[in-house]
This record gives sequence, C-alpha cells and structure tokens, in this order.
Amino acid sequence: MADTVTPRFLRDLKAPAVDRGQVLTFGADKPLVLDSGKVLSPFTLAYQTYGELNAARNNAILVPHALTGDQFASGIHPVTGKPGWWDVMIGPGKPIDTDRFFVICVNVVGGCMGTSGPGETNPETGQPFGLGFPLVTIDDMVRAQAMLIDDLKIDQLLCVMGGSMGGMQVLQWGSAYGSRVFSAMPIATGARHSAQNIAFNEVGRQAIMADPDWHGGDYAEHNVNPSKGLAVARMAAHITYLSEAALQRKFGRELQNRDVLSFGFDADFQIESYLRHQGMSFVDRFDANSYLYLTRAMDYFDMAAEHGGVLAEAFRGTRTRFCLMSFTSDWLFPTGENKRVAHALNAAGANVSFVEIETDRGHDAFLLDEPEMFATVRGFLGSAAAAKGIP
Amino acid sequence: MADTVTPRFLRDLKAPAVDRGQVLTFGADKPLVLDSGKVLSPFTLAYQTYGELNAARNNAILVPHALTGDQFASGIHPVTGKPGWWDVMIGPGKPIDTDRFFVICVNVVGGCMGTSGPGETNPETGQPFGLGFPLVTIDDMVRAQAMLIDDLKIDQLLCVMGGSMGGMQVLQWGSAYGSRVFSAMPIATGARHSAQNIAFNEVGRQAIMADPDWHGGDYAEHNVNPSKGLAVARMAAHITYLSEAALQRKFGRELQNRDVLSFGFDADFQIESYLRHQGMSFVDRFDANSYLYLTRAMDYFDMAAEHGGVLAEAFRGTRTRFCLMSFTSDWLFPTGENKRVAHALNAAGANVSFVEIETDRGHDAFLLDEPEMFATVRGFLGSAAAAKGIP
Repeated sequence: MADTVTPRFLRDLKAPAVDRGQVLTFGADKPLVLDSGKVLSPFTLAYQTYGELNAARNNAILVPHALTGDQFASGIHPVTGKPGWWDVMIGPGKPIDTDRFFVICVNVVGGCMGTSGPGETNPETGQPFGLGFPLVTIDDMVRAQAMLIDDLKIDQLLCVMGGSMGGMQVLQWGSAYGSRVFSAMPIATGARHSAQNIAFNEVGRQAIMADPDWHGGDYAEHNVNPSKGLAVARMAAHITYLSEAALQRKFGRELQNRDVLSFGFDADFQIESYLRHQGMSFVDRFDANSYLYLTRAMDYFDMAAEHGGVLAEAFRGTRTRFCLMSFTSDWLFPTGENKRVAHALNAAGANVSFVEIETDRGHDAFLLDEPEMFATVRGFLGSAAAAKGIP
Repeated sequence: MADTVTPRFLRDLKAPAVDRGQVLTFGADKPLVLDSGKVLSPFTLAYQTYGELNAARNNAILVPHALTGDQFASGIHPVTGKPGWWDVMIGPGKPIDTDRFFVICVNVVGGCMGTSGPGETNPETGQPFGLGFPLVTIDDMVRAQAMLIDDLKIDQLLCVMGGSMGGMQVLQWGSAYGSRVFSAMPIATGARHSAQNIAFNEVGRQAIMADPDWHGGDYAEHNVNPSKGLAVARMAAHITYLSEAALQRKFGRELQNRDVLSFGFDADFQIESYLRHQGMSFVDRFDANSYLYLTRAMDYFDMAAEHGGVLAEAFRGTRTRFCLMSFTSDWLFPTGENKRVAHALNAAGANVSFVEIETDRGHDAFLLDEPEMFATVRGFLGSAAAAKGIP
C-alpha cells in the first residue's frame, strides 16, 4: 500500500515524489481533539511498519521518533538514501528484532513526512496550512498514535520505546494509556523541557523567523524556502546533541583541507565545515515550519504541570514495566532529568529500572552503536516477550 | 581630551555622537604588523583610564575586555547609559581601587567603540573597511596595547587582568611581554578555544552572514544593519554565558506576563522573552562585522600551537606572578581549561596560584557580584602593590 507524495520542501527542490510509507486518513467522524482546544479533521498519519503482527496481536512495538526523525527508522530512507535514524536498532536479528516483533513508526502530527502538519494542504483553503496549522503537543501526537493503534486492532503494545522527543512520547503513552502499554523504554529524555532547552529551541525559531524567505510561514506561496535560517537553527541544535569531549576528540582544532589558517571567514576548522554540512543537508530533508511546531511541542511538555505539579501522579497505579536509559555525557537531557522520572515512577509504585550508560558521545548516543544500550534493549524486550509468551 | 564619534551602527539609529574616551592614533611611522602578515597603518586606539598614574609610573593596571565589552569598564557607559561592564570591580574603594591604581581599558583592535575595526573608514578608500579590514588575532590586540603602554611611558604594568577574551589577552601579555607585567590575573579563560567554542562562534557568524542585510559586510553602504542575524548570534552566545542551573533557577518554565500557554509562537516563557531582549538590545550597541572579527580572533587563539605544541614554552622563564580564577559552573571556559594553563605555568616554573569559585552563575560570574572573586582580586593586587611599595 505504498503511497507517494512530494513534501513541499522537496517540491521546492524539484525532487521526484517519494514513498511516505503507509498512510491512514481519519475522516470527519474521527477528529483529533487537540490540547489547544482546536480540532484537526480530517487528518492523516504516515507510518511504516517492520516485521509481522502475530496472530495474538501482542508483539507490536511502537517507536516514536525524535525532533528531526520520521517513520523511516529502519532500512534505507527513501528521501535521504541513507540508513534510517534507528537502523542500528531495528531489523532482523537486531536489538528490536523484526523477526520476532512488529515495529510501528509513525510520523508525528506536525511533522513533514506525510503526516498532517504545517506543510500539508489545508482542505478548507486548498493552500498549505503554514502557521494556520494548529499548535500540537506531545500529548496530541500520542493521542493520534493511539487512534492508529486502534485502527490496527492492537489492544496492548508490547513496548513503546524511543529517545529524546520520542522518549517524551513514550512517557506520555505510559501516563495516558498505561493499560495499553505492557512495557516502556524512555531513553535520553525528560518529563519536561528545561529553561536551557527552551532557550536553544527559541534561538532556532528566531533564526528561521529572521529569514526573509520565511514570509511569516507562507514561504510555499512565494516559492522559496527559509533555508539559511533553518540551517542556522540546525547548527545551533546540533551542538547540543554532542558532548564537549566528543567534539574535542573528533575535531579538536584540526583544520579542514588546509595547513594554515586562512585569516578570513572560510571554514578553516573541521568543526566549522562539519556544522555547515549539518545545516545544509538538513534543509534538504526537513520543513522549516515543522521545525517551529515540533520544537514548540517539546517546550510545552511538562508532565508534572499536567498533574497538579506532582510528576508521580502522572503514573499513579501504572502496571507498565519501565526501563529508563540515560548517557553520562548528554547535556540536553542529563541523567538528572531521566532520574527525576525514575524517582517519580518509584514514588508511584511502578516497576522501573534505570540504566546510565558511560559514553562521551552526548545526547546523540541513543542513535549510535552503543553496545550497552543494545544489550539493555535486548534484555528488556526479551523479558517482556517471555512474559507474554512470544517466541 | 574627549573626542566624539558616532559608530556606524549608531549612525544607522540616528543617535547623537558619543564620547569614545581618549583616542590615540599611530601614524605611518608606527604601523601595527599583524599575525596575518598584513599591516594596519595608520590605526587608532580608543581607551579610557580611571585613577591617577603615580610619579613612579608603577601603579598601572591594564584591563583588557571580553568579546562584547569595550573601554568603558567603570562608571556609566556613554552609549548604553548603564554601568560599565566591570563597574562592580573598578572604582574608588572597589577591588581594583582607583584611589590607589591607574586603570587602563582599551577597546581592542577589530572592535567597534572607536578603535580601528571593520566599521571604521578605510583611509585609502574613504569607505568603511567592512571585510576589507584585515583579520586580527589576540596577539595583534596585545601588540597594539603594548604600543599604547609605550606611549604612556609605563615600563611595567603592576597587573594585567581580565576575563574570557580579556583573559586570553592577559595570557598573551604574560607570554609575549613578561618583563613588562609584574602580575597577571586571567579569569574564566583558556589558552585555546575548544571545538565546542568554535562551533558556537560559527553559528553566530552564520546567523549574521545569513541576514540579507549583511550584504557581504557592506551593510553601511546600503544604509541597513543585519540586526536580526546579530540578535540571533547574541542569543545563541548568551546561553553559553549562563549555566543550566542558573537558567532553571532564574527562569525555569515560568511564563511571561500570562497565566496560560498561548499555543503559538509568542514568547510564552520568561526565558524566551529574556533572550529576545538580550538579542535586541545588543544590536543597538554592537557592530555585526566586529562580532565576526572578534569571534574569529578567539577561535584562532592557541598559545600552545604558537610554541611548538607545548603550552609551558609560552611562559618559559617568566617572572610574572600569576593568579588564575575559574567558576565551577562555567561551561564555556570550564575549570579544566583554566587548570590546563595553571599546569603549564607550573611546568614553566612560574609563580602561580589558582582559585576555583563555587557558583551556579556560569561564565558570566566574572562580571557579577562574586564576593570570593572580589576578595581574591583585593588580596592579589594588595600583595603586588606591597611588593612594589605602592601605598
């Protein structure tokens, strides 16, 4: 059931239409009621599945993605031509073993890979939504995913797991739909966005909005793309994904393709060249308005605030098995933020384990080849599968 | 000998001419030979002094400024109308006591408060230099300052002290002009810029250069100012000046002038409003091209590289007394970078002490009311003064 579409930012690049995986549109009878009070209807979810759903329909693992991820977590990404964002994790024989499990990856609401978002056409106007798209929250993303899980006739997910913004969705699944989540694995995440994290997101948003090609969000109508602003936003964010130590180890003060300093503003240093490349390649695969919407959703996330200021209340009575994971050098979601969630789960009487992995790779460690992470995932999923009698 | 000038970025704002302190122009007979091999001639230094030079001419303290500082360290700043950047430190009875000491603050070469920089007029063309201004280094800044100290007929400075980029200049003074520096106090600094620091500077530069009003550096000719890009650069940098803990303590997730989230892209959170204000107020007092030049000078700074890869060689044989200071929560110049310098000084057999101050205020702590810093400065300067017989 492949469906193809060319996202707007790709149309700008005159790229051919690309596969967006499977697509499910909810009609007027199934509106998405948003936290803002607004209603999104109709709306579309683009998703990708890996492996087979078993007859008992109890081997499904939902993997929400992070800020700049999408539904193409495994295999070759149809837009970038590179491995999906969690190809190291998901596949036959891999830690999330698609020979055993049925893996579901959904592009979040507000995203730009086929799911309803600011780049999609507003059915009421026939024009792209732009800033006319309603603001969405992490809770809204999860609410939409639950409608997909209903549609797939899955009563309970064996596991929900993901990192960063994906981990926020995992926590919200555990809180709002505890009975439908047998186990949950939030990685490198937190139950709220810190002031520093909001600050970095705001820098990115201001960079995008400062680009005159942004046109108040209506760049599609002007046939332009705020590429420079989006690239700056990506560069700033990318620094937060790595650790100071890893940057020093990988790049240090090494020069790029030169023996001496240029005494100018070229990318003399490898780190500059690397960052510029990160910025420029990002704009080919991501939509600027989506970046605004998804960073805003992360900023708004505050589970304790939704539960009278007491985070433990978000998980009161939960029977979900939790395994939390953090990385020692992650300064975007430091171990302390992950532990705060673990403490709340303990206070709620939950079944929870916590693993802190020693690495200098920073926040991005959850996307990389981290043997201890893989072993933890294998062990946790294996135990959940055994409890459910899944071979 | 007050001289007035309106910096270009202020002319854009149609502001009246402002005091730039004292001004010294070096003519064709005294060129500034730069590390790039280029020569700056003629060139001008704008500086400000506080207190009186004694008859022995041995009570002078040079205070180099940080990236966005200038010569107006003490008293009310003539452009901003607010206290100078180190008014807490410099003045009668203050830790750098102008009743005892003669304090000299010089706007760095490449700056924008009266000293020669990219915003000044190129005498050869009659137009602003823009990117035609030669790239300058920390060493170049110090070389120019030494020419001023010559002109003031001061053989030896009682102390050179400053923080951040100012601290880099202090280190370079101690290395290149050791016999002319009785004591030196580098604060919250390092002998090189790390990969992460270069990365943040590069984000700022790209934000400025992405602004179409930058015009390849020739914005003056177009009667515009790349304000939006410069504001984004400032916002990104400002995050690095504070600690995560201080941001959380001061702002947390508090909302700005509202009780509920806007579900939009207004500055809902206090941290957003604060950052936007930092960005917008900065563009009224700082020049975008100067920001490019001075961040580049910081990136290029690497004392070890200039001495065969061995930092201790930069200080071999020094007789200068050093006192280094760092702040526990400073992640721009962490204690480790400061200690690296202390170790090199030890290896060079220098007289060196090191103070790490416990605070959650991050890099900006050196600009703030930090009693332990004040006590250390008083003690160190008092001891130097006693050794020199200064009452």
